[in-house]
Amino acid sequence: MNAPTHPNHLTPAVKQREVSAECLAELQARFGANCSVAMAVREHHGRDESPFIDVPPPAAVIFAQNTQDVADAVALCAAHGVPVIPYGVGSSLEGHLLAVQGGVSLDVSRMNQVLSVNAEDLTVTVQPGVTRKQLNEEIKSTGLFFPIDPGADASIGGMCATRASGTNAVRYGTMRENVLALEVVTASGEVIRTGTRAKKSSAGYDLTRLFVGSEGTLGVMTEISLRIYPLPEAVSAAVCSFPSLEAAVQTTIAIIQMGVPIARVELIDAASVRAVNAYAKLDLAEAPLLLMEFHGSPAGVEEQAKTVQEIALEHGSVSFEWATTPEERTRLWTARHNAYFAALQSRPGCRAVTTDTCVPISKLAEAMLDSIAEAEASGLPYFLVGHVGDGNFHVGYLIDPNDPKEYETAEALNQRLVHRALTLGGTCTGEHGVGLHKMDFLRTEAGDGAVEMMRTIKRALDPHNIMNPGKIFSL
Amino acid sequence: MNAPTHPNHLTPAVKQREVSAECLAELQARFGANCSVAMAVREHHGRDESPFIDVPPPAAVIFAQNTQDVADAVALCAAHGVPVIPYGVGSSLEGHLLAVQGGVSLDVSRMNQVLSVNAEDLTVTVQPGVTRKQLNEEIKSTGLFFPIDPGADASIGGMCATRASGTNAVRYGTMRENVLALEVVTASGEVIRTGTRAKKSSAGYDLTRLFVGSEGTLGVMTEISLRIYPLPEAVSAAVCSFPSLEAAVQTTIAIIQMGVPIARVELIDAASVRAVNAYAKLDLAEAPLLLMEFHGSPAGVEEQAKTVQEIALEHGSVSFEWATTPEERTRLWTARHNAYFAALQSRPGCRAVTTDTCVPISKLAEAMLDSIAEAEASGLPYFLVGHVGDGNFHVGYLIDPNDPKEYETAEALNQRLVHRALTLGGTCTGEHGVGLHKMDFLRTEAGDGAVEMMRTIKRALDPHNIMNPGKIFSL
Repeated sequence: MNAPTHPNHLTPAVKQREVSAECLAELQARFGANCSVAMAVREHHGRDESPFIDVPPPAAVIFAQNTQDVADAVALCAAHGVPVIPYGVGSSLEGHLLAVQGGVSLDVSRMNQVLSVNAEDLTVTVQPGVTRKQLNEEIKSTGLFFPIDPGADASIGGMCATRASGTNAVRYGTMRENVLALEVVTASGEVIRTGTRAKKSSAGYDLTRLFVGSEGTLGVMTEISLRIYPLPEAVSAAVCSFPSLEAAVQTTIAIIQMGVPIARVELIDAASVRAVNAYAKLDLAEAPLLLMEFHGSPAGVEEQAKTVQEIALEHGSVSFEWATTPEERTRLWTARHNAYFAALQSRPGCRAVTTDTCVPISKLAEAMLDSIAEAEASGLPYFLVGHVGDGNFHVGYLIDPNDPKEYETAEALNQRLVHRALTLGGTCTGEHGVGLHKMDFLRTEAGDGAVEMMRTIKRALDPHNIMNPGKIFSL
Repeated sequence: MNAPTHPNHLTPAVKQREVSAECLAELQARFGANCSVAMAVREHHGRDESPFIDVPPPAAVIFAQNTQDVADAVALCAAHGVPVIPYGVGSSLEGHLLAVQGGVSLDVSRMNQVLSVNAEDLTVTVQPGVTRKQLNEEIKSTGLFFPIDPGADASIGGMCATRASGTNAVRYGTMRENVLALEVVTASGEVIRTGTRAKKSSAGYDLTRLFVGSEGTLGVMTEISLRIYPLPEAVSAAVCSFPSLEAAVQTTIAIIQMGVPIARVELIDAASVRAVNAYAKLDLAEAPLLLMEFHGSPAGVEEQAKTVQEIALEHGSVSFEWATTPEERTRLWTARHNAYFAALQSRPGCRAVTTDTCVPISKLAEAMLDSIAEAEASGLPYFLVGHVGDGNFHVGYLIDPNDPKEYETAEALNQRLVHRALTLGGTCTGEHGVGLHKMDFLRTEAGDGAVEMMRTIKRALDPHNIMNPGKIFSL
């Protein structure tokens, strides 16, 4: 396996393409004030939550208001061979938004309308700039909800682009399972539709799922139809602490293998619990924890919880506490969602090098525990959180950004962790995407043949390579 | 919308390509007795359960024993520009298997090994010729099962190719949700792998789901990793009869909208009940029926059943009877699976022109009842069965194959039914696939832009157009 590109050494552009004065003038003529060349705006759009630095910002930022704007922007850029980088809220983690080949950023955050709520069909259609929290706020009165919850309040468009998931995926699936249909602007600026609101279909190639996870490299999503779910009649949450990470992991494995329809089962290691306690003013036991949630009828929830409690006890659980009120639950899950930021604050001035592997559930203990032993041995501070019900976990190595040695140590740990996951039949990214950071890992995971097939599809659908070029694979 | 190709008028080949004597000699040299040119074998492989006739059989049939055989057969055919039509058990319904552009049939039915059962991960890896019943038989001792059940005992490879589903999809999803990873022989004879056994991944384009539903037009699947599920602790089934189709449909809609996790909810109309009774020696009430099944814990199943019984009563259900023993349940579901054959027997010598639309659940009554009224008015015998929990239903018009007028009437009814479903936001095929029969409907449903994108992908991945050419779209 080749070494992954070193973020601190990232060449500002593989092949920075020129955005001609003529192209810029045409964009400004078409978009007026919605085409900005202000450096602050460009710089804001030229970075994301990834560790990459030193990449020049895009030449301009276009704020699209509607599908026609997107189509015109892409068509105009296509005519000039200028890269287009779709931008939602800027929360992606693997360098997806960086203008490594130059070009313009196409900001769809103002396309933030919930277009229709079909409560009877359990579907909703939104514009790509709607965020997950906004969506849930807007459909609250219907008694329905959208379960996918990456850590950030990401845009639905961005979540489609990275095939995002989060804490509820163990029960409700990921964006892969929950996107029904799309309106897409292709690389030539044409508007097409994929899928319908029917729950299933055998009508030709699954273009919807080709776009979900394509990281902006095939087109721009301008409308998204999603599955939504009835709010469960009963919800209960529990916090269960364990004497060891292994006990917590083995409990999770047993829960999944027994087919308990648990809605959430999240692992937090002792260090992260400490960080979360400090950050969110909680007093959770500073031991490896499982945060769990059960959805169903009152009797169903009670039954699930009882089964899980028995499994946990068999694995030596130390305590099992209930969060019964909605307020307590919200506090707990907000704390979980803030674990990343809490961990960052635990070492002031640090940044995190994070991992995102996912393995078959029976391999979870092996994948996780050996990697944690290596992290311990390195002396670097780290945190561990995991959507363990899916076999997906994140280790974050907290490094001093000014100490190249710490970065090297973290990258070496990351390499070994991902390698181990791949050897165990897993994937290099469960939910963050490939972006710039995982291109070499993808090649190891998928093999040259499969990556070449992805490239072939990309070349066919985007012959001038203008859609977010240089991401997922080199091209 | 253009008229769909008339089966009785189907030109034997859009462009029958020659299979040269040289190519045949090379195939025979490589495959020996596993390359048959016997007319009976070729004819057997040149038809399926579709209504198409008068298509010349493939020039030869190759029986592949392993991945290398498939790779060699495809590479050899690629070198000669000869079409390759993957063949499982021949149960597809829309003309997928017909050699409309000539070429050879590649029979994978002897690749029928269950390669590995990972009970701890709830996954299994099989060769494409394993049938769904065989798979469930072979994993029975693990306490796990594979839920997808199209009417026929189809091969898993064929089920992948058509994105099949069946009666359990309302709870467990379709092949789209249950295929984790594939080994595929591409159109150039290269072997690639897509996906891993990890439950989720964001690692690049979703090639797995591009192949699922591609109807053999992009490559040949040679290994398939599937999700399997713990056999539910408790199962109960019920038969509920209604005074009208509408009452049965409205009951279904209410069940789904309430979020009841029902495992199966199947509609059978009175005529089909009559046919099934005669065929399977049952004494079901000859009225519109819902056959339902509940999976879960004993208490959970009881609770679901109670809720559903209340909903049914509110909609005027006439009776609600339990099938409590496994034997009774098996008899009931076998009867359901044989509904198609039972209906055929109800009019000796007839054949069925079947439909397969799927609509958003709130539109199900409208889609179904107006079409049934039209069928009644036509005077043609018909049957109706439906995976109504998914909004998917089949009408079969029972026609005299020697009476072109009956065929015309059936096709006209079909046209109106599909048109109506598309207008209501549905799809022209819920689970059977496009094949030859639905190409025009697909264009109406997806639009020229999306179909052209499918064609572009096909051209890029199969530049010589040898993989099952002439299916899904004209090319």
